[in-house]
Amino acid sequence: TNYIEGRRACAEALDARIPLRRALVAASAKERDRALDELIVRLEGAGVAIEYVPRDRLDGRSSHGAHQGIMLEVEPYEYAELTDIVAAAGEGDALILLLDHVTDEGNFGAIVRTAEVVGAAGVIIASTRAAQVGTAAYKTSAGAVLHIPIARVPNLATTVEQLKEAGFWVGAATEHAHDDVWHAPMEGRVCLVMGSEDNGVSALVRKRCDFECKLPQRGRVESLNVAQATTALCYEWLRRTMAKVNDAS
Amino acid sequence: TNYIEGRRACAEALDARIPLRRALVAASAKERDRALDELIVRLEGAGVAIEYVPRDRLDGRSSHGAHQGIMLEVEPYEYAELTDIVAAAGEGDALILLLDHVTDEGNFGAIVRTAEVVGAAGVIIASTRAAQVGTAAYKTSAGAVLHIPIARVPNLATTVEQLKEAGFWVGAATEHAHDDVWHAPMEGRVCLVMGSEDNGVSALVRKRCDFECKLPQRGRVESLNVAQATTALCYEWLRRTMAKVNDAS
Repeated sequence: TNYIEGRRACAEALDARIPLRRALVAASAKERDRALDELIVRLEGAGVAIEYVPRDRLDGRSSHGAHQGIMLEVEPYEYAELTDIVAAAGEGDALILLLDHVTDEGNFGAIVRTAEVVGAAGVIIASTRAAQVGTAAYKTSAGAVLHIPIARVPNLATTVEQLKEAGFWVGAATEHAHDDVWHAPMEGRVCLVMGSEDNGVSALVRKRCDFECKLPQRGRVESLNVAQATTALCYEWLRRTMAKVNDAS
Repeated sequence: TNYIEGRRACAEALDARIPLRRALVAASAKERDRALDELIVRLEGAGVAIEYVPRDRLDGRSSHGAHQGIMLEVEPYEYAELTDIVAAAGEGDALILLLDHVTDEGNFGAIVRTAEVVGAAGVIIASTRAAQVGTAAYKTSAGAVLHIPIARVPNLATTVEQLKEAGFWVGAATEHAHDDVWHAPMEGRVCLVMGSEDNGVSALVRKRCDFECKLPQRGRVESLNVAQATTALCYEWLRRTMAKVNDAS
């Protein structure tokens, strides 16, 4: 079971509309003050059950002893399976995002938001050393984590092979690419691989991809962050995929 | 003169590479501890002059009394004039971004980063009720605020007219638009108007624009945030503007 503790983190979880099971609040008068009372009113307003418990029950569940009199029990996030995402993609044109160890949860959430907005079939992440669905991802995804399947896989290279077998063209976004995205086959049935903030797409994954592409950059500062780059690339996929559909009709 | 106060804010300013004039540090032993000493070492390493002053001098300059023994004097950000940006745009193809009261400084910084990366001539913001260049904008722009002119104007509607006179096609991004961006004249000499997080582009500005456009959205959650939308739109401008140049050559 997952708990969120501390007033600020609890208020943020409420703002981000994370599904909550209940709130545990210290029953002792000592912890209560106006700020906590206001938070309780807001939780009640959002339909969250409030349970008053002895302070030492909170202490026992606290991971770092900073609960400030309140903890929220969170509904566990339900990850999808890879097969769910492939099923959601259907047989024809579809976009899947595969994140090669994006580590910033805010970036991850922003990517999920873009994926959902362009109608992607799902987002695949690594099960370790990568940002997972937590408060920050709920927040920057504007709740999109609840509306698009997200799968965790132990081995990204294997997953790339599985997606190729399922008929996807797998493309890695990398500044080392020869082709810009406008001259890459970024349309139809595509899995777009985005790399980590620090290291980009790993060599092991890159060499299994069908193509590589980059976004032209004309500035003097470092490149776009991974979430911004994902948005530009996803819209290029959507532009060409919709144009293809319109041409055919 | 601008001051940044408190240890966390000062460390963030340093990380964001904000140009700093000097650090004012409380001389009294009472304020000094290992965390402050480490911050001082980092500031010295970055070439920032350290000045030890009586605590009451910090109190006197503190805006909310939370300096924690350290304040940084920041080089004032040098805004450009509208004429500078028009001059930077030259005579031919160019992109200018006009922000109609974007209020979140993180979004503002992310937009500046995108503008710089696609080679825009500048960014125009409203002089009041809008995010200005501060620590958060330095941070999310990855320092791009130092590499692209940013102008503040008192009246956005007047500015739109001035840009039209300077040969720009002015387009408002709005979900109420009839055309999607792929069917809008988003190429060549364009000023792209992005609206505020809450209200979009104001009616007063919208009615002065030459065209409107939107990004198609296929998801169920709310739309992209303004920074993500700006990235997608700017790359569509770059795609078509570069294609035009390549066709001509």
